[in-house]
This record gives sequence, structure tokens and C-alpha cells, in this order.
Amino acid sequence: MKTNAYGAHAGDQALEPLQITRREPGPHDVQIDIAFCGVCHSDIHQVRAEWAGTLFPCVPGHEIVGRVAAVGTHVSGFSIGDLVGVGCIVDSCQHCEDCDAGLENYCDGMVGTYNGPTADAPGHTLGGYSQQIVVHERYVLRVRHPETQLAAVAPLLCAGITTWSPLRHWQAGPGKKVGVVGIGGLGHMGIKLAHALGAHVVAITTSASKRADAKALGADEVVVSRNADEMAQHAKSFDLILNTVAAPHDLDAFLALLKRDGTLTLVGAPASPHPSPNVFNLITRRRAIAGSMIGGIPETQEMLDFCAEHGIVADIELIRADEINQAYERMLASDVKYRFVIDNATLSD
Amino acid sequence: MKTNAYGAHAGDQALEPLQITRREPGPHDVQIDIAFCGVCHSDIHQVRAEWAGTLFPCVPGHEIVGRVAAVGTHVSGFSIGDLVGVGCIVDSCQHCEDCDAGLENYCDGMVGTYNGPTADAPGHTLGGYSQQIVVHERYVLRVRHPETQLAAVAPLLCAGITTWSPLRHWQAGPGKKVGVVGIGGLGHMGIKLAHALGAHVVAITTSASKRADAKALGADEVVVSRNADEMAQHAKSFDLILNTVAAPHDLDAFLALLKRDGTLTLVGAPASPHPSPNVFNLITRRRAIAGSMIGGIPETQEMLDFCAEHGIVADIELIRADEINQAYERMLASDVKYRFVIDNATLSD
Ligand SMILES: [Zn+2]
Ligand SMILES: [Zn+2]
Ligand SMILES: [Zn+2]
Ligand SMILES: [Zn+2]
Repeated sequence: MKTNAYGAHAGDQALEPLQITRREPGPHDVQIDIAFCGVCHSDIHQVRAEWAGTLFPCVPGHEIVGRVAAVGTHVSGFSIGDLVGVGCIVDSCQHCEDCDAGLENYCDGMVGTYNGPTADAPGHTLGGYSQQIVVHERYVLRVRHPETQLAAVAPLLCAGITTWSPLRHWQAGPGKKVGVVGIGGLGHMGIKLAHALGAHVVAITTSASKRADAKALGADEVVVSRNADEMAQHAKSFDLILNTVAAPHDLDAFLALLKRDGTLTLVGAPASPHPSPNVFNLITRRRAIAGSMIGGIPETQEMLDFCAEHGIVADIELIRADEINQAYERMLASDVKYRFVIDNATLSD
Repeated sequence: MKTNAYGAHAGDQALEPLQITRREPGPHDVQIDIAFCGVCHSDIHQVRAEWAGTLFPCVPGHEIVGRVAAVGTHVSGFSIGDLVGVGCIVDSCQHCEDCDAGLENYCDGMVGTYNGPTADAPGHTLGGYSQQIVVHERYVLRVRHPETQLAAVAPLLCAGITTWSPLRHWQAGPGKKVGVVGIGGLGHMGIKLAHALGAHVVAITTSASKRADAKALGADEVVVSRNADEMAQHAKSFDLILNTVAAPHDLDAFLALLKRDGTLTLVGAPASPHPSPNVFNLITRRRAIAGSMIGGIPETQEMLDFCAEHGIVADIELIRADEINQAYERMLASDVKYRFVIDNATLSD
């Protein structure tokens, strides 16, 4: 089955219209008409071959929402017409300790929604900048938001779960003080989710100009990290700091904000290393630096249901598919509040 | 009250006999005749002014065992003649969250057994390389080992609790695979304790020559970290790795050994930074790098009682006080199995 898509033929080329092939749905497959697809920073890194191993043609996109168009003979959980989502994962080994725990994101056999190994042509997965996608039912999520919110639901599939998973794992909630470093695509979801979970939320940003925006997103307080006095007022007070900034930066300033047994969780990996963190900052209060990568399928469903119940969606700017190259440039300039979402109807020429 | 001691007048001078003054026991104080004092690497760093802020004269020593010689009027837990120990802590604020939790080691007002602030002359605390010490009863531990083992109990007060606390906090026990990096004063206790707690213990060392010794200490397996094949066989398999090596070294090789949600716990802080750890190693399996510093008073008592019950003591080499300078040189050459302990009777006259 042919479908229109947007992608690139090489790392140094702009994205352009492509036609790709999707497999016919197997017994456990769900075929989805994609309505919207969010635009993640990972998309840029991958399609521009800034990460090792990009396979071309590359069609990015792992914040996918749409409607079920067809289901395989053994699919019982979804019916034609259902509102559904697909995130960063379209396959995994399905029988390891991680898969059994519903943490397919940590499975060695995890297959990403794009650039992952597959038997389908062209031998690697192609993502959500396309009209249709076919995915094993295990990796399809149910969307319970009203359809009018569908575009703004898309970023929950990556930015949402990437912040939700560590917030839940490190038990953000009432009585906990949670910091969110960086107010971008990930950070703005981290603030919304931590706030809705009942934590005392402090947004930590380099730019004083984001104070009002951060409060509007749900931050109880805003700290400008370049202001040493402001930072000092929060020393040794956080249970958890979610650091969404992938660019290399000093981690010690954030470690100093953690109370005993607090954790600084990184959800982005820098292209070159952060300055080496000071071990004294760790041992003197039994602090930890941890990492977290997206989330598993059951917790993604949990997050989507929580968001539907609490009326949470991403703040988005809707674009046409042919605006994607300009959108990338604006993202690199941090000129978006807070996520671009492609209207996939614009792929139908 | 005057007491003989061994200490230094400056960072570049050898230790020599000194006479120091101990306060008269207050209502909550316990006066202790010190029988033995273990020799910790911290002693060397402090007395040689390799750490900032060493105050002279400096009398090191925070692995203290002995007998109660006198008790203050309000002391109810100890009587004259009791076998007792004193570790790294002789005071704290006694009313903060950490103190209330029995984690006086993380209290901002924690006073070290030497080089800590005190009203007593000379204005800073003086440690266990001395005949007597006077300590608030809260920081005095009961020793339930037979007296014949007393010298070998001394290192439990720092090396023991420094490894016990993280082993307990990160739940080393049956069904858990625990690595111990470095087989020295700390590491040899880590192996013994993790083994007695029921964990599957893997000693990780740079020197193949330590294989037999590590097994004798209780290691189920030994991995030579310079052997990439051996390391690879243990990839993604550890729940906890206790890293006792303070010298700067690559942490990534150990992170790669952790399974999902595993923790690499550092108990030593390097003088210059470790190479910056690879964040990908953290996020791809939700791993953590944490720190831990000695332990609180209740858990120190728990550890001592556990060791008495399981017949655990340190492996020691007993020395005279006037052998301390040579002992330091041998420690720096890793030429001790595994802890020097001063026979404080050699301070008399
Ligand atoms: Zn993403
Ligand atoms: Zn799996
Ligand atoms: Zn010590
Ligand atoms: Zn305290």
C-alpha cells in the first residue's frame, strides 16, 4: 500500500515529498490513518544524520495520532474508527524481562518508529510524517481525548511520556518538590504533568523572560538558573529535578539543589559530554544522577488516560507538511511554544 | 584531662607524639579508654592537608574501639567497663530531618571525629590516635564482639559502615547481584558484608593477582576490569555496584554492567574529577550514579550487631603508634591486607 510522506534522501538534504510503502496489516496489526504528527528534536538529529546510523530515505515522526482504518484478524482491542496514537516504539522482543514489565523502551529488541530494523521495505522503519502507518496492536495506544484536541495530543506520545515516566518512577506527587529544567517541548509537558500529579513544581530556566509562561503552564515557582541568589534559595530542597536540556552544561548547580536522596534525572543525552559532575555533591547527601528514556507502552496508556481525565494536552503550533524545514530552523532557535505538529491532511496533495 | 596522642603540626610534617587535652565528661558524655584505632585513607588526606581546611595540630583516627572509663550523670545506655566504639561522627545538630532520621552523617551540623568544630581546646576535634576520648553518648556505639576480636572490630566504624550503609540502602541481599570495585580497606569490608547479607557478590579489581584473596573474603566471582571479555560477560547484570575507588577513573565500564534500574554508588570522592560519564549509559537503562557517605548512628549499631552475630571483623595488621608514618607509606602503595590498626596501648609512656 502506497502512502505519501515527507522525508529526506540524505543528511544534508532538506525534507521533501516522498512516496513510501506500508505493509498490508497482519493478524495483529492496526492500520492507522494519521491525522497529526508532532515534531521532536530527535527527528532533526536523526534525519540530519547527527546521530550515528541514519538510514535513508528517512521519514521521521514518532508523535502520531489518527484513526484506525483497518485491523488484522486477531486484533481485539481496536476497531475501525477508533482514535489512537503511536509513539516512539513499534516493536520489541515481547518476551524479555523489560517487555514483561511493560518497559519495552528498555528492551534490547526495541524497534523505533523510524530508523529501526524491520522486514518491511526499505528495511528500516519509516515514521509519522506520512499518511498511514501499520503497527502491531501491542504498540498502539487508545486516545480518549475529544477529537477537537487531537493535534495537541500528538506530542504526548513522545514529549509527554518522556517526562511522565520519570515523574512517576521517582514518585512526583503531593508533598514532593519537583524541578523541571528547560521549558521547551519536553519541559513544558514536564511542568504540566508534575503540576497535575500534585507536586510543588519549580521551573528552572536560563531566561527570565520565560517566568510568566512557566507559571501559566503550572509552575508554582520559577528559578532563573543564571541568578546565583535565586538558585541558592532553593539549595538542598528538591526531591527530583527533571533535566530536559540535552546541550552540554554544568550539572553541579542542579545537584546542589537536591535534598538528601534526591535525584537529578536526565532525559536528553548531549552530543558532547557534560562537564564531569562533582562527586562530593553526590556523596554528601546520597544524591543520584539518573537517566530515563521515553517510557513503556502501559505507562504511555496510563499517561494518555491521565491527560484525558485532567484535560491536559501540549501547547502546539500546527503546520503544513511543506513547512517542516522552516519549522526545524525555528526549533533550533527555540522559536516555538512549545511543539510543532504537522497536519498530515496536507500530505494528500 | 591530659592524654597522649599521635599527630602532626603541619601538613608536610611526619606524625609524632603529642599531648592533648580532653574535656571533663558532661552529663551526656562517655569517656573512653581507647584500645585500638584503625587507620583510614581519610586520615592521610586530612593530616597531610590534601583536603582543604586541615587544622593543626591534627590528630587523625575515626575507627575507635575501647572501654568506657567514666560516664556523665545523665548517661543511661553505657556503664564503666562496656566495650564501645566511636566512628566518624562525634556530634550533629540533633534536631534536623537527617538527625531525626538517624542519618546524622548527612546533617549540616555533623562534627567529624577529627578536624571538626568544637568548643573544646584547641577549637577543633582530635581523633582516635590517642589514649582517651570523650564523646556524647548519642555517638557512642556498643560493641558486642568478643574482646579478643576488638582490634579487628575498629575498622568497622568507618570502612564497615561506609560500605554497609549503601548496601542496605540499595537493598543488597538474596537475589541481588552486587559488585564491589576495589579490594582495599573499604572493598574488603564491602565483599564480606554483601556476602553475609546474602547477595551474589562479584569483586571487580584491576589486578588478577587478587582473585584468590577476593574469593577468600566471600566473593562468588571475581572480574578483572582490565579484561574486556570478562567485563562483557557481566554486561547489564548488576543491581548495584559499590565503587570504593577514589582515584579518578572511567565510570562507563561499570555503568555498562548495570541492569535496568541499577545503581553505581560511589563512596569515595576523587581529588580531580572522573572522566565525565556517558549519559547514554544512564538513559538507555534508567541507570543511576549515586554517592554515599559513611552512615548514621543507628545503622552503624545495626552493622556492628550484624557483624557480631555473623562473626565478621576486618582483616587487619596491628601496628605500634610509632609505626604510623611507615604505615601511611605502605597504604599509599596498597601494601596492606586490608587495614592497619594502631594498638593504642603503645601510646602510654
Ligand atoms: Zn521524540
Ligand atoms: Zn523485550
Ligand atoms: Zn574513614
Ligand atoms: Zn542534624
